[in-house]
Amino acid sequence: MSEKTRHGNFFEDFRVGQKIAHATPRTLTEGDVALYTALTGSRFATSADTFAHSIGFPRAPIDDLLTFNMVYGRTVPDISLSAIANLGYAIGRFGHPVYPGDTLSADSTVIGLKENSDGKTGIVYVRSCGVNQRGQIALDYCSWFMVHKRDPASPPPETVVPELPTAVAAGDLRVPTGIRIEQYDTALSGSTDLWNDYEVGECIDHVDGMTIEESEHMMATRLYQNNARLHFNQQAATTGRFGRRLIYGGHILSLARSLSFNGLANAFSIAAINGGRHVAPAFASDTIYAWSEVLEQLIVPGRNDIGALRLRTVATRDQPCADFPYQTADGRYDPSVLLDFDYTVLIPRRE
Amino acid sequence: MSEKTRHGNFFEDFRVGQKIAHATPRTLTEGDVALYTALTGSRFATSADTFAHSIGFPRAPIDDLLTFNMVYGRTVPDISLSAIANLGYAIGRFGHPVYPGDTLSADSTVIGLKENSDGKTGIVYVRSCGVNQRGQIALDYCSWFMVHKRDPASPPPETVVPELPTAVAAGDLRVPTGIRIEQYDTALSGSTDLWNDYEVGECIDHVDGMTIEESEHMMATRLYQNNARLHFNQQAATTGRFGRRLIYGGHILSLARSLSFNGLANAFSIAAINGGRHVAPAFASDTIYAWSEVLEQLIVPGRNDIGALRLRTVATRDQPCADFPYQTADGRYDPSVLLDFDYTVLIPRRE
Amino acid sequence: MSEKTRHGNFFEDFRVGQKIAHATPRTLTEGDVALYTALTGSRFATSADTFAHSIGFPRAPIDDLLTFNMVYGRTVPDISLSAIANLGYAIGRFGHPVYPGDTLSADSTVIGLKENSDGKTGIVYVRSCGVNQRGQIALDYCSWFMVHKRDPASPPPETVVPELPTAVAAGDLRVPTGIRIEQYDTALSGSTDLWNDYEVGECIDHVDGMTIEESEHMMATRLYQNNARLHFNQQAATTGRFGRRLIYGGHILSLARSLSFNGLANAFSIAAINGGRHVAPAFASDTIYAWSEVLEQLIVPGRNDIGALRLRTVATRDQPCADFPYQTADGRYDPSVLLDFDYTVLIPRRE
Repeated sequence: MSEKTRHGNFFEDFRVGQKIAHATPRTLTEGDVALYTALTGSRFATSADTFAHSIGFPRAPIDDLLTFNMVYGRTVPDISLSAIANLGYAIGRFGHPVYPGDTLSADSTVIGLKENSDGKTGIVYVRSCGVNQRGQIALDYCSWFMVHKRDPASPPPETVVPELPTAVAAGDLRVPTGIRIEQYDTALSGSTDLWNDYEVGECIDHVDGMTIEESEHMMATRLYQNNARLHFNQQAATTGRFGRRLIYGGHILSLARSLSFNGLANAFSIAAINGGRHVAPAFASDTIYAWSEVLEQLIVPGRNDIGALRLRTVATRDQPCADFPYQTADGRYDPSVLLDFDYTVLIPRRE
Repeated sequence: MSEKTRHGNFFEDFRVGQKIAHATPRTLTEGDVALYTALTGSRFATSADTFAHSIGFPRAPIDDLLTFNMVYGRTVPDISLSAIANLGYAIGRFGHPVYPGDTLSADSTVIGLKENSDGKTGIVYVRSCGVNQRGQIALDYCSWFMVHKRDPASPPPETVVPELPTAVAAGDLRVPTGIRIEQYDTALSGSTDLWNDYEVGECIDHVDGMTIEESEHMMATRLYQNNARLHFNQQAATTGRFGRRLIYGGHILSLARSLSFNGLANAFSIAAINGGRHVAPAFASDTIYAWSEVLEQLIVPGRNDIGALRLRTVATRDQPCADFPYQTADGRYDPSVLLDFDYTVLIPRRE
Repeated sequence: MSEKTRHGNFFEDFRVGQKIAHATPRTLTEGDVALYTALTGSRFATSADTFAHSIGFPRAPIDDLLTFNMVYGRTVPDISLSAIANLGYAIGRFGHPVYPGDTLSADSTVIGLKENSDGKTGIVYVRSCGVNQRGQIALDYCSWFMVHKRDPASPPPETVVPELPTAVAAGDLRVPTGIRIEQYDTALSGSTDLWNDYEVGECIDHVDGMTIEESEHMMATRLYQNNARLHFNQQAATTGRFGRRLIYGGHILSLARSLSFNGLANAFSIAAINGGRHVAPAFASDTIYAWSEVLEQLIVPGRNDIGALRLRTVATRDQPCADFPYQTADGRYDPSVLLDFDYTVLIPRRE
């Protein structure tokens, strides 16, 4: 096997403070947008140039989760190519909107390391950042992964576990420059429900179900240039733990957000990712459903026309969500739950 | 279940004269065009900027049926989300060509209502219209659907059944502004057969067959943001009437038109949809074939360089079309027939 | 069956010296690029506008094999629609880079004919050329096909077998105008291995495996508007030799090149196709692997900053390539081998 080939990093390859510039910058285009629509069914009205322009965007911005998946894709060869599991996300903030023609580059900084008690694996915490061709930050977020040690006998590093806030504070949410809501058209957006119409604790069943095919999740994952092997190689998977190709968790995230249009049509922008967990693996032929709970109703400082909702969106497999499946009394997840996603959206607000 | 979620309209929700502005305008892009090509295999030469320009288009226009499917997609959440069946199309006219970068919005007007004798369902007739960002009409057409009543006990509305002409008259066909045929290159278009070479009653077998996969019809349907549930949810379908996800009829329409290139390569533009019927449902793994009959050879007023052909294109499943399968003596459709489509194309004419 | 339908050419339809202008010019767009990425997973850094610009391209060029597949697709209706087999490629040279917005037209010239001893088939040799809208050559290459005779009784033509060089000479390789390597960033390109780091005879296992779905190869092949029937029609295939739809060989080519990123990340451009053979047919559910051998380390005349590597890339099915499967002692291919591709790449060179 040639040493020219990359096999991903092991636990010993990371050190706290290390900064990794990721390869293959990505120019996002209208082609990526079309594929994202075809693969997820997203219907938010800001995807149309006219609607986006009417609320102050120069044109339709790239869907926030398309941006997320593109930035995540950059990090995979260095961070998670051989990871055992993606354990979670925290404190993700969307910054400058991304438009077709922009090129995103990404880097990651190691902010924590902790060897597991088995001596064979460890957890790597990173802060990843996607910047456009002008150096403006489009997104930064933290995530952590379980990775193999190269050598179980190697000594453990000093344990550093970063303190990560449970949510992005309202004052840290960024409303894109120039956004104004006076001409916001709720006939075109698909719903008359604005910030004022939601209340904390309200649960919304997004009703629709979407069955996933192998080619769909692989096309999405390749679009993001995420090359983690377990998504693509059925021959290797056949002898593996699940016997199947695993669906990239970011595809489930995108499907859940797209399904949430039915009930949250005016949540035109994601401002923050507070936390997220891929609770169980998803496979082709799973039918994905989703529901959301309003966790907080946030005032955006300086804006009385736009508010924020902190949401929990839960995605399930093969389980309609009229009963809001989540956790059982002992805190375990219902077996149907795939995703537990805590994020903050911007939504127009009546004065 | 939250009242914020939309479940589609019932028969009682429609009244004659009602005008519905549909949500989520759609900016069409080169990305949509690429996906349309990848999903249908369309090969008409006007898809190339150079060829389109040589005949007077400023650049390659959006394929007429991509426009149709996009407009139709807008209407689904309001008109047919819970429809039992799409019963037909009539008097569709293509107007201003659509180009990448244009944004289409759509509205529908209810033009007829008729409760069925079972008292549980009714038929809704609508005229739908797609307009670009400058307010120019790209397409209007009539269609009708069978929908459920919310309450079988509710009184029937006054019956209004619109008189719809069986075909768009030659004088109502629009040739896009600026089209000229002097430089039309039949080597590049793929055929030397022009208007003069066809005759009424002539039947053309389009020969090729195309097998459909689940991911393909779902990607096409999501691209159009048509969210009708029966196309996407295998779990719900399993206990339904067919046990399978239904393929959106517009995908069959697009495949039939693409297959028709082989025999109708110079039919560079669809000017009208006279009528159409989805005769039977299609499912993944069906192999689609098509054949066409020339119904009328129309003179376009004021043009001796471009003529029109009124065509019937029939799509079948799992049945090659050398024998032109259509109807049996008693007027029933051959069991292989999926689509019976009556439309009018523009085609160069030798003087 | 109407004579308006095309069924492809037979052996008798070709004569040496004949020049065929192919139909349906193709405007390449960012949409095609997005689909190519989603279908192949290509990760070469020149796909980003910023990186491409940093080495002297005005923007990201179209992937060389996307160009190849697009040119090849033009030729199919005239050359290989009914071909029994694509037998090989030779002396392919990439010329002017292709950018989104360019339109490629293609023509082919018959350069050889040889009837087979069975009297029922023959071999047609062609030189095909893809040119952009300004008449600049993007690619030319030779290929040969086995095709049926229409009538076994027809007399054989004079045998003409062209002398084709086994490789494009270093002096005939074209480095795109304006390319400069001073700012080449090996962190962004994904590898520090440059021309100087490879040696003749070195073999590189590209490690990753990619399982192909039916919809993926059909979407790719339709994107190229390659309408060869055996790729699309499962109903006809069921009674055919393989019982399955055949995967277009160009899709395997593209997958092999994409996989080769892992080990050849700096091979930013393909300059020549020296030869190629589709050794065995590929089918959906095959998992594709690849490895490469460095055949020659070429100096590009006049450039001490860019060198060329002549490579053999071998693609296999269901066979990881750590042992470099190729040919057995008697010169037969290992049964896992699908593709034997001999080509020349450009790669930065340290002085």
